[in-house]
Amino acid sequence: MSFAVECMEEAFRQHATGRLVAPCRLVSDVQAGQLVFTVGASLGQAPVTGFRCYDLGQLHSPNRSEVTAVLDGLDGHLRGLVIGPLLGAVRTGAIGGLAIKYLVAPDVRSLALLGTGYQARTQLRAALAVRQFETVSVFSREPERRGRFADEMTRQLGHKIQSVASSQAAVEDADVIICATTSTRPVVRSRWLKPGVHINNIGPKFRDGHELELETYQSAGRMVTDAPAQVEALGDSFVLHGSPMEQELEPLSTIVAASRADERCTAPDRDTSRVQKNSVFVSLGMAGTEVLLANAVFHSRTARE
Amino acid sequence: MSFAVECMEEAFRQHATGRLVAPCRLVSDVQAGQLVFTVGASLGQAPVTGFRCYDLGQLHSPNRSEVTAVLDGLDGHLRGLVIGPLLGAVRTGAIGGLAIKYLVAPDVRSLALLGTGYQARTQLRAALAVRQFETVSVFSREPERRGRFADEMTRQLGHKIQSVASSQAAVEDADVIICATTSTRPVVRSRWLKPGVHINNIGPKFRDGHELELETYQSAGRMVTDAPAQVEALGDSFVLHGSPMEQELEPLSTIVAASRADERCTAPDRDTSRVQKNSVFVSLGMAGTEVLLANAVFHSRTARE
Repeated sequence: MSFAVECMEEAFRQHATGRLVAPCRLVSDVQAGQLVFTVGASLGQAPVTGFRCYDLGQLHSPNRSEVTAVLDGLDGHLRGLVIGPLLGAVRTGAIGGLAIKYLVAPDVRSLALLGTGYQARTQLRAALAVRQFETVSVFSREPERRGRFADEMTRQLGHKIQSVASSQAAVEDADVIICATTSTRPVVRSRWLKPGVHINNIGPKFRDGHELELETYQSAGRMVTDAPAQVEALGDSFVLHGSPMEQELEPLSTIVAASRADERCTAPDRDTSRVQKNSVFVSLGMAGTEVLLANAVFHSRTARE
Repeated sequence: MSFAVECMEEAFRQHATGRLVAPCRLVSDVQAGQLVFTVGASLGQAPVTGFRCYDLGQLHSPNRSEVTAVLDGLDGHLRGLVIGPLLGAVRTGAIGGLAIKYLVAPDVRSLALLGTGYQARTQLRAALAVRQFETVSVFSREPERRGRFADEMTRQLGHKIQSVASSQAAVEDADVIICATTSTRPVVRSRWLKPGVHINNIGPKFRDGHELELETYQSAGRMVTDAPAQVEALGDSFVLHGSPMEQELEPLSTIVAASRADERCTAPDRDTSRVQKNSVFVSLGMAGTEVLLANAVFHSRTARE
């Protein structure tokens, strides 16, 4: 996951300088499915282009597969393919980790995780890759499921993951909250939050359904997104559409590019007026990042062989 | 190629009854390339969905690759992938063959081929799969290239392919002409054509560049296309846009579905007023056909194993 976060760091730097091309996703509704293509390209001396494709109609199928392809930008040959459901979630997790790395103080101690699905797993891994959390609490509605998740992740990650009995119990002492549910109704109340909390908003963020309260967005001192092009494409289906908050969304790439490497671990936010104000990362999935991640994996394998 | 033509026949029958979903293609311009996705689905008891992707910016690269993926419509698992530049051209060739099968009298004798590229090869194979031509003439601008093409295809197909010195010499006695050039200026003059000729128009058909004369379209008694959705999507860049001819374009799927199997070889056109009138097949590439062809290949391999 550290490798994936580094790769995303490079991707967002490229995006800030226009080298990563990340248009909004394309969607084709074909009745027997709804294929989504996130397309992107990395320019420069060794340009690549490519896409990830998934069927939005199969998001809950355990057998669903995704296809990510990387094409050489110079002669069009296929550099490689990644098949399976993992790459997209790892990428999204790594972007969540990158957001924490750049938006959250280095001395945060407690993490809350809401949700126990695919995205929750990769977000958790990425958060632990960028910060040293003392406590990690997880909540989801099914006690058995959250217990199993906590046991499994404790074993896998070598870090105690505590299953708690309510959303409030998970978040009220948290410095960082990862909201990775599929809930279309708010799962966190603003009044439960500690001042200065950071939230990764991975799940629904539509006008018709959102996992965070509107007040949580309204009270945030800082709101950041990875995919400005996707915000625009969502139009009035986006939860913040038409509100002044939409204009306040900062691109993550600008923040990553503005920080020098030696600064970012000690002073993620130098504007003191923002201290103790909440921040929200609105995760929408920047295009092209899957292509860069897949390409980096191919490169690292070639280098090892 | 006979297998591919049969598969396309099934695809166009499905399209006529709404079982093949074939929206217009999606294009994403990413600076280092221009990725095109043709997406489609076949409905019914064993639905499949999928796409073919190619980089329009690499059409002339010998190393370019294409990716065709077939996903199961019920649970989203990947049924298979086809990698490489061939599938799209074989599909387009097979559709050209299908057009000849349904639009051309069974007793045609002479075929002219303009162009010696990828598409010319598959169109030629498909034409020979559906009709018994006595003579086949080929022309392209480079004498050496057309000579090599004629020798190679004669050997491969076991049918004499004659290289001729001019476009006029190729087409003036032809019953069927396949125009598979990349020329943006007309390569055939209407006044050279025999009455009742059929033309497969595979190459450019844009307002700004077209391989056929406008007069050739105007004088046709029948114009057919495989991809009505694509005609619409082309909008004013289509050579026939805004002319009454655009309204006269018949969908190939309607013609295929209307013919009973026992009729189609003997009476491809029962409207006698059309006899001796030219016909033009405007090939635009119906979406979903690559997915069906790839799926049929997977099926046939599974059946053999």
